[in-house]
Amino acid sequence: MTGKLYGVGVGPGDPELMTIKARRVLESVDVVCAPDSGREGRALEIVKKAVDRDFNVLRPHFPMTKKREVLEKAWGEAAEAIYRELKKDKDVAFVTIGDPTFYSTFAYVMERIKAAHPEVEIEVVPGVTSVTACAASLGIPLVSGGESLAVVPAAYGIDNLELLAQNFDTVVLMKVSRSFDAIAERIERAGLSGRAVFVARCGSEAFFSSDLESLKGREVDYLSMILLRGLRR
Amino acid sequence: MTGKLYGVGVGPGDPELMTIKARRVLESVDVVCAPDSGREGRALEIVKKAVDRDFNVLRPHFPMTKKREVLEKAWGEAAEAIYRELKKDKDVAFVTIGDPTFYSTFAYVMERIKAAHPEVEIEVVPGVTSVTACAASLGIPLVSGGESLAVVPAAYGIDNLELLAQNFDTVVLMKVSRSFDAIAERIERAGLSGRAVFVARCGSEAFFSSDLESLKGREVDYLSMILLRGLRR
Repeated sequence: MTGKLYGVGVGPGDPELMTIKARRVLESVDVVCAPDSGREGRALEIVKKAVDRDFNVLRPHFPMTKKREVLEKAWGEAAEAIYRELKKDKDVAFVTIGDPTFYSTFAYVMERIKAAHPEVEIEVVPGVTSVTACAASLGIPLVSGGESLAVVPAAYGIDNLELLAQNFDTVVLMKVSRSFDAIAERIERAGLSGRAVFVARCGSEAFFSSDLESLKGREVDYLSMILLRGLRR
Repeated sequence: MTGKLYGVGVGPGDPELMTIKARRVLESVDVVCAPDSGREGRALEIVKKAVDRDFNVLRPHFPMTKKREVLEKAWGEAAEAIYRELKKDKDVAFVTIGDPTFYSTFAYVMERIKAAHPEVEIEVVPGVTSVTACAASLGIPLVSGGESLAVVPAAYGIDNLELLAQNFDTVVLMKVSRSFDAIAERIERAGLSGRAVFVARCGSEAFFSSDLESLKGREVDYLSMILLRGLRR
């Protein structure tokens, strides 16, 4: 017997956009695991605002890199650090901003624990993603009726942007911070600037702009995205 | 001056998957508006479980049809019924299962109120969608790292299924209940049966099956979907 592992989505940023279940789990677990970089680091800030108690925090180091072997090592070490707590019969909540099934490192950690320690009970608590929170803060629908949606991590390339625009009503480009200028230029080249809205910090006091040109060269928040809407009208 | 209109997502079905903010809003508004059919009808059941108070309920009739002129009339009437409450300085929460920006009739009602009564203050409270809740209940990631996601309402046709499978890692087919057998056959014809999982009632005690063949001819829940995973591996 071991403790139970939870993957908990804490929502897009506003502590009130956490689910009732997420808060209940975070009020009951022995250990909260929040990696020290990127999205998961933000998650811990949100938890501290929403949950009024002291908890033990496990902070594995997740390097901000795309190098597969470096990442694999970090995920494996995090999984083992979590397992050491579970083996002491402690329940652990791995927290992530947004939802644990949606671009979260929880996926990799869960995979490793499932493979190495299949006896561990795992529960995933879904959360509000930044995607619908962005549309909500803009006061626009993301998709309605017969419309279709594509979500693409733009940092990995958007060579097929024209194809996306032809086949989808709404395209959401995630992970736009690291190469914002190139992405903005790619959108311009595809003739889609008029359809684009940049959104940052959608979970709290959102910032948005439909003038991508004016944002070039500026520092862009890690959790920002670009929405392309009304593409097939 | 009028009351304020909220579009409130109550999450995928489990009352605990409602956000703290959704519950707070529902505990404070004068009127809860829940259309009498489909997704919004379910939303009212969830609200009654999560919120322990009596509230005035407005139940406009939304016909289950694709006929545009019938729908337009129903949305217009719902918008005016809501506006009559707002004009009495009452706050109204239009509730929807999942998220109000994600395939909700709230989009149409909001559009009409914005156009006819621009003085009304509107706030959209996002919710957990059935899409991430499905992945969570299956204990699998929806998308990770460089993966991309397509969400398509299958009832409107999936002629481009092969193109979707070539360009996306994960494809979610929504609205599969009305023509389930034809959709299952289309997936088979595309050679994707081995990648498909059918999920129903993801918000509470989920039902899932990767054997679409066995589900043919059976009654399929209105809120079910099919996930196609690992398409580009």
